[in-house]
Amino acid sequence: MASESGKLWGGRFVGAVDPIMEKFNSSIAYDRHLWEVDVQGSKAYSRGLEKAGLLTKAEMDQILHGLDKVAEEWAQGTFKLNPNDEDIHTANERRLKELIGETAGKLHTGRSRNDQVVTDLRLWMRQNCSKLSALLQELIRTMVDRAEAERDVLFPGYTHLQRAQPIRWSHWILSHAVALTRDSERLLEVQKRVNVLPLGSGAIAGNPLGVDRELLRAELNFGAITLNSMDATSERDFVAEFLFWASLCMTHLSRMAEDLILYGTKEFSFVQLSDAYSTGSSLMPQKKNPDSLELIRSKAGRVFGRCAGLLMTLKGLPSTYNKDLQEDKEAVFEVSDTMSAVLQVATGVISTLQIHRDNMARALSPDMLATDLAYYLVRKGMPFRQAHEASGKAVFMAETKGVPLNQLSLRELQTISPLFSGDVSRVWDYGHSVEQYAALGGTASSSVDWQIGQVRALLRARQA
Amino acid sequence: MASESGKLWGGRFVGAVDPIMEKFNSSIAYDRHLWEVDVQGSKAYSRGLEKAGLLTKAEMDQILHGLDKVAEEWAQGTFKLNPNDEDIHTANERRLKELIGETAGKLHTGRSRNDQVVTDLRLWMRQNCSKLSALLQELIRTMVDRAEAERDVLFPGYTHLQRAQPIRWSHWILSHAVALTRDSERLLEVQKRVNVLPLGSGAIAGNPLGVDRELLRAELNFGAITLNSMDATSERDFVAEFLFWASLCMTHLSRMAEDLILYGTKEFSFVQLSDAYSTGSSLMPQKKNPDSLELIRSKAGRVFGRCAGLLMTLKGLPSTYNKDLQEDKEAVFEVSDTMSAVLQVATGVISTLQIHRDNMARALSPDMLATDLAYYLVRKGMPFRQAHEASGKAVFMAETKGVPLNQLSLRELQTISPLFSGDVSRVWDYGHSVEQYAALGGTASSSVDWQIGQVRALLRARQA
Amino acid sequence: MASESGKLWGGRFVGAVDPIMEKFNSSIAYDRHLWEVDVQGSKAYSRGLEKAGLLTKAEMDQILHGLDKVAEEWAQGTFKLNPNDEDIHTANERRLKELIGETAGKLHTGRSRNDQVVTDLRLWMRQNCSKLSALLQELIRTMVDRAEAERDVLFPGYTHLQRAQPIRWSHWILSHAVALTRDSERLLEVQKRVNVLPLGSGAIAGNPLGVDRELLRAELNFGAITLNSMDATSERDFVAEFLFWASLCMTHLSRMAEDLILYGTKEFSFVQLSDAYSTGSSLMPQKKNPDSLELIRSKAGRVFGRCAGLLMTLKGLPSTYNKDLQEDKEAVFEVSDTMSAVLQVATGVISTLQIHRDNMARALSPDMLATDLAYYLVRKGMPFRQAHEASGKAVFMAETKGVPLNQLSLRELQTISPLFSGDVSRVWDYGHSVEQYAALGGTASSSVDWQIGQVRALLRARQA
Amino acid sequence: MASESGKLWGGRFVGAVDPIMEKFNSSIAYDRHLWEVDVQGSKAYSRGLEKAGLLTKAEMDQILHGLDKVAEEWAQGTFKLNPNDEDIHTANERRLKELIGETAGKLHTGRSRNDQVVTDLRLWMRQNCSKLSALLQELIRTMVDRAEAERDVLFPGYTHLQRAQPIRWSHWILSHAVALTRDSERLLEVQKRVNVLPLGSGAIAGNPLGVDRELLRAELNFGAITLNSMDATSERDFVAEFLFWASLCMTHLSRMAEDLILYGTKEFSFVQLSDAYSTGSSLMPQKKNPDSLELIRSKAGRVFGRCAGLLMTLKGLPSTYNKDLQEDKEAVFEVSDTMSAVLQVATGVISTLQIHRDNMARALSPDMLATDLAYYLVRKGMPFRQAHEASGKAVFMAETKGVPLNQLSLRELQTISPLFSGDVSRVWDYGHSVEQYAALGGTASSSVDWQIGQVRALLRARQA
Repeated sequence: MASESGKLWGGRFVGAVDPIMEKFNSSIAYDRHLWEVDVQGSKAYSRGLEKAGLLTKAEMDQILHGLDKVAEEWAQGTFKLNPNDEDIHTANERRLKELIGETAGKLHTGRSRNDQVVTDLRLWMRQNCSKLSALLQELIRTMVDRAEAERDVLFPGYTHLQRAQPIRWSHWILSHAVALTRDSERLLEVQKRVNVLPLGSGAIAGNPLGVDRELLRAELNFGAITLNSMDATSERDFVAEFLFWASLCMTHLSRMAEDLILYGTKEFSFVQLSDAYSTGSSLMPQKKNPDSLELIRSKAGRVFGRCAGLLMTLKGLPSTYNKDLQEDKEAVFEVSDTMSAVLQVATGVISTLQIHRDNMARALSPDMLATDLAYYLVRKGMPFRQAHEASGKAVFMAETKGVPLNQLSLRELQTISPLFSGDVSRVWDYGHSVEQYAALGGTASSSVDWQIGQVRALLRARQA
Repeated sequence: MASESGKLWGGRFVGAVDPIMEKFNSSIAYDRHLWEVDVQGSKAYSRGLEKAGLLTKAEMDQILHGLDKVAEEWAQGTFKLNPNDEDIHTANERRLKELIGETAGKLHTGRSRNDQVVTDLRLWMRQNCSKLSALLQELIRTMVDRAEAERDVLFPGYTHLQRAQPIRWSHWILSHAVALTRDSERLLEVQKRVNVLPLGSGAIAGNPLGVDRELLRAELNFGAITLNSMDATSERDFVAEFLFWASLCMTHLSRMAEDLILYGTKEFSFVQLSDAYSTGSSLMPQKKNPDSLELIRSKAGRVFGRCAGLLMTLKGLPSTYNKDLQEDKEAVFEVSDTMSAVLQVATGVISTLQIHRDNMARALSPDMLATDLAYYLVRKGMPFRQAHEASGKAVFMAETKGVPLNQLSLRELQTISPLFSGDVSRVWDYGHSVEQYAALGGTASSSVDWQIGQVRALLRARQA
Repeated sequence: MASESGKLWGGRFVGAVDPIMEKFNSSIAYDRHLWEVDVQGSKAYSRGLEKAGLLTKAEMDQILHGLDKVAEEWAQGTFKLNPNDEDIHTANERRLKELIGETAGKLHTGRSRNDQVVTDLRLWMRQNCSKLSALLQELIRTMVDRAEAERDVLFPGYTHLQRAQPIRWSHWILSHAVALTRDSERLLEVQKRVNVLPLGSGAIAGNPLGVDRELLRAELNFGAITLNSMDATSERDFVAEFLFWASLCMTHLSRMAEDLILYGTKEFSFVQLSDAYSTGSSLMPQKKNPDSLELIRSKAGRVFGRCAGLLMTLKGLPSTYNKDLQEDKEAVFEVSDTMSAVLQVATGVISTLQIHRDNMARALSPDMLATDLAYYLVRKGMPFRQAHEASGKAVFMAETKGVPLNQLSLRELQTISPLFSGDVSRVWDYGHSVEQYAALGGTASSSVDWQIGQVRALLRARQA
Repeated sequence: MASESGKLWGGRFVGAVDPIMEKFNSSIAYDRHLWEVDVQGSKAYSRGLEKAGLLTKAEMDQILHGLDKVAEEWAQGTFKLNPNDEDIHTANERRLKELIGETAGKLHTGRSRNDQVVTDLRLWMRQNCSKLSALLQELIRTMVDRAEAERDVLFPGYTHLQRAQPIRWSHWILSHAVALTRDSERLLEVQKRVNVLPLGSGAIAGNPLGVDRELLRAELNFGAITLNSMDATSERDFVAEFLFWASLCMTHLSRMAEDLILYGTKEFSFVQLSDAYSTGSSLMPQKKNPDSLELIRSKAGRVFGRCAGLLMTLKGLPSTYNKDLQEDKEAVFEVSDTMSAVLQVATGVISTLQIHRDNMARALSPDMLATDLAYYLVRKGMPFRQAHEASGKAVFMAETKGVPLNQLSLRELQTISPLFSGDVSRVWDYGHSVEQYAALGGTASSSVDWQIGQVRALLRARQA
């Protein structure tokens, strides 16, 4: 059909085969991770073929037995790849044929690599999401345990990195734990959409041989089957969702890491990382660097980069399967590995972190109670805006006099407002301050207990 | 405290106020969109204050009345902004004070802009997500209606943009509609997490004045309250999720647009856009360009850019409120507007698109039945891998002879396999071909009907 | 040609015109910013047409005069848009026709909106990049001035946010100024590629009427002309490069902002923002928040989001002009505005920032000289790895004894190494420490002076 | 200093060492790629130490010899990694010490891993960018060769994927080649900024031992030295620039791939990929899929994802070295490998692609000359806007009559305008049409030749 010979227009020589193209095209270097789920999917499919009358019982048994043998070779590290094994599907079927002969050629009946590969990927991700979910629960549980045990520790709460109000250390821990419970909830939703079976969609048009997809679903324990064969073979929403789930979870962990890096500076000195999570300097003998936290923070970029990359690959792609979709797997594998490491390291960091209670206490200062001073006036009937202004005057007066806010005399305060009286001294008690914040979600001990209860309930619900 | 005077080190002169900084800092240019929800939130909060004994019934009524007046001014376009109104919250409270006097100063008691702004944004997004959801349902419904009406039209299905197998036109429509049902499902989940009340979290530590957050929740009809005040005022997961929801939805629409742009080329000539969605050329009189579809495709980039931007802004941010979070609103407003336009234009395009049935039919060719030829042999007992090879030989033979695949004689076919017999002629019927794909999700009419039923059921469920 | 009537398949009603599509398609809301350059380009083009004999001298004069009138109306705010003015090009030509009649219809001869719009955008960006370049130089100059004036101030240098070694405050300033000089260099390269003329490329095939593109180039003072008409009308490299330039510049500024936010915390207390660049709290009277720096930090996300969005829009686009490219302008306008504000605010911040020399001095501690202690031993002939270990032992000994590192007695040090002798006392002088780092690029005063000289030379070169 | 014991708060047990943290922290798995440049950098540094009097000549020779031995082991694959070799720098120095004893401990004098690693990376990238540059030149050269050889082939030019005007096939090839020349120019700029030496910056403060950085620069053949030690050790602009360079180059290649995928569809049938760059289907025997082009298109996403990831990692990072920067290397290695494969595969595709001249010719249709018809009238004196309208009327008339545009009789044309006369027949010659576009950059043969000359000149300039 070609109107020209294969004549070269300059450029590198290319014969029938371009080895660089072969390598570019091949996915076996990474999709071999799918060996187990590929066998699992093929076993279910051979059962489907038998039910549909396309395999005899004996043929099916032969195939099942052969596939078990293939899996065994992978598990034992004895599986030998051929140069022509461009992907895991080809490799496994090639090996199956060597083991059981021509019957192997019946396995792919009505199936396409298009529905096969996405079934494999969903099976793999299903397992992997469960593992990540467990690691995430463990991190949350560690945080809640710690929050419960250290509920009596107060330290400065910051906004804009400026000291704002006294809060419980546990309130800080819980602020990050609560964020992670949303990640846990979202992962559940991702898992629900991962857990949908595309097998039986063929290359594009569906399955023409009476294979019962509900049976396949039941065999492989999926929650549902895909609705449309064209969509089923080419949509990667579940991959994009997973990558975004990881990206958002990583922004949470990057923020927690940032806080802890700051709290671990000489200047803050609130926390100290365990040696297991710090590293020394090749030049400066006195240093101990929070490498674990910096790596966690940095991975937010890497993980999001994978999400961005996949979405860009998907943008404007013609529908149905295009080879572009081959980009999905490395992204999933890399992000899964990263999340697994990050969640475990974060758990280790939190569970071994030392806190410096004295420094935390020392960092509380009377000016952080200026809001409480305003509330004092509010409770005496002054509109908040006036009280805010009055308290601001007191702050200014103290600064001018060069004394802490709580060292202003009652008389001085009364020059600002006659509503001040002797009971103003109660304002200067940090313990009293935090206990005011008793509305749900606040930093009072009752509210912290309520939070712990809420998070524990979520953990239990996830367990069940 | 400063050890230096305000001496300038070169650079532009800056007095007490830098007008560029004022503008840089101000958000009123865009957060004025929140005027209605800001009033709504403040009304609920004043009820909460009254219940907590911080306002008398009369004061509350005065505030409620004043806030209604403020809203009325906005609605009628008579609200006048002051130069000092840096944001909508300041503007509304300033105006309230002008209208009702000092009592206005009680409204902000125990509240911070930190919990106020995020409450406003959630209220706004809740409304807006409902609107987008309705527009998305309408698009899906339009597609399903069309799929149902044009179920008898066949045309080529493509993979890798190469003709693959005959499919129903409705199957193509449904492949995109089904993708959109996942967007609809995901939006529901986003809405659930938008619909959580942060009010009563204060700036960081919570609310110290006995305001009942459950009462606020009920007043504002939220589904739940936030668990931790530090997290509540600084997490923007619901924004990130919304932006990602839109990004993924746009990749779906970009792929549909890409298909339709291709199908509308002279070379494919399957579809023709309505004039309402095409544009002429300033230079070439004969041209009609699919601008609507190109714009839809392009917006996938813009929308994702906002998602990427927000996540980068969040990365590594210290916890609690930082001014960086001010970036959330413009992203939400722009993406909401874009999605609203895109969904409506897509609905218009689909509902007015003309299809060229004759061209679609003409584009079907016998080589697209090569897989069916293989299945023919499979049904006669040949293992699929051999049948695939045999069919490949037939394709090659036909190419060599320069005839269509279905013009090979029975005798010629039998040189490839003795399993070919007279009934092979049925293979060459496109209508027969598609009807084979009767497994759920396939392109047979029964399966297309099933798909239509499934999507309609989802639409009904969403309605309810 | 259509095989179907315009029958609707559900969905919203659409007549000949869909108002939402009209608005979706229209760009006048933002491309009106191009009014001046659009007139400028048209004036040059009419000169080209005259030279090519397509306009008489009289016609050209009529058009030039008319265009000046159009520009005048824009400048005076009297230009009235029509509902049909979908873009600035249409608007200006429409108005020209109203002003001078049918001759206006000759202006677009051989031109397409495809080459017109990209010419306009390049003209606009050329102006704007010059403005941004000047603002960037001013920021750098301010920093260098300050670095020169405060060269005698020492404070801790941090790596991993842990105190590392004493450095000059000027060295810190210069570390950020030097990064910005790379941005300045890169901007010059972007400008070079912006400054290439596409006019005369038509819609795709070029100009068929003998218009002399070199003449157009000279008229509009471009540095070169584009090489290929298909590429010229559809490449947006110069936009992508500009957006990336801004993104990378913003990461620099985000890092400087991060440093200053930290240095401005109560815990570090090294710097204090001028009131002009800080904001108070609506709840906490004692607070002064570094809003300016937080906004700068946050804009890194927004700007990069625009860059990401454009690249995604470009990915996989068929070559030549597609409407998708309309996304370029809003990105450019928004990012230009952002950069302009950020650069000016950063200059204001730097030029008014107060530093707390005493706090800086107090933050230096003897353990930061542990590396110098190792160098002491190196100078006495010990291999560095042993010296590093020996210094580490001294750090440990001091920690164990609970004394600062410089309080170890000579005898104690000699238990670690006999190479320690009386001259070790010089190590404990911070001024002496920094002066050691005299290699180019280091923190010694000679090297800081060299840096200042280098940066000033770059500024002068840019000026020229 | 810790106020708490290492007590665990739930979570996984962690002793002195957490194996997951060890692996998380270690970079040897990928930075081993730097073995050669690490040795190269160390050799230069030991020469610098000798000149500074910190090594004797004999010590230097010992070190140089030992480093050669280390390199030899890597080259021969006999280098054995220890479990404690966390990175390539540690590994090489550890091995050096085994080989030459304590003198090895002098090598790191005044050096830090902070300046060492970034020196290594720059050396590696310098080599690699040269390789990529050569591959890019080869691709461009192949394209230009082909453009020159096939200059006589005409086919439709498209805008908005609608047939627009006849163009030369070579004009299309050159449109992509010209885009790539910008990538070549940009790569040169990236290389310039890669080629700057940071060695001698230490960890943060510089080098205190009199090492001559100019000497190091000359030894390692860098173009310049970095200006500021804090910046030098922590800026990764050159990495970000490289990743963006690759991203923009990939958008070009993704657009070319998109064109070729379309041109290779059955519907267009303009080109046919060589078998070496196509792949068959596991299900459909008749298919040949353009996998090579799809993979090229998809990599635009992956590569950009790495760029996005790095920028996010950099955003808001405190200045100087933080462990987050460890993310740079994998991004560089992956993107380098991808670019190398993509450029070579693209060259192979272009050099072996077959074109179907007959199909290209057949795809030209008279309506594509409607613009030329308008120009015909322009040349007769009609203002373009009227001519455009007149030509539009002719198009409409032909459509109404169901005849091709060139089949309208002169009389029919004259009902539209009396300016039509017998010479209008010349308009219908495609060859004549393209030759009109003789302005520089157009599709006339003279202009195509000019383009070829321009691009060849750029290639020669790059060579030199």
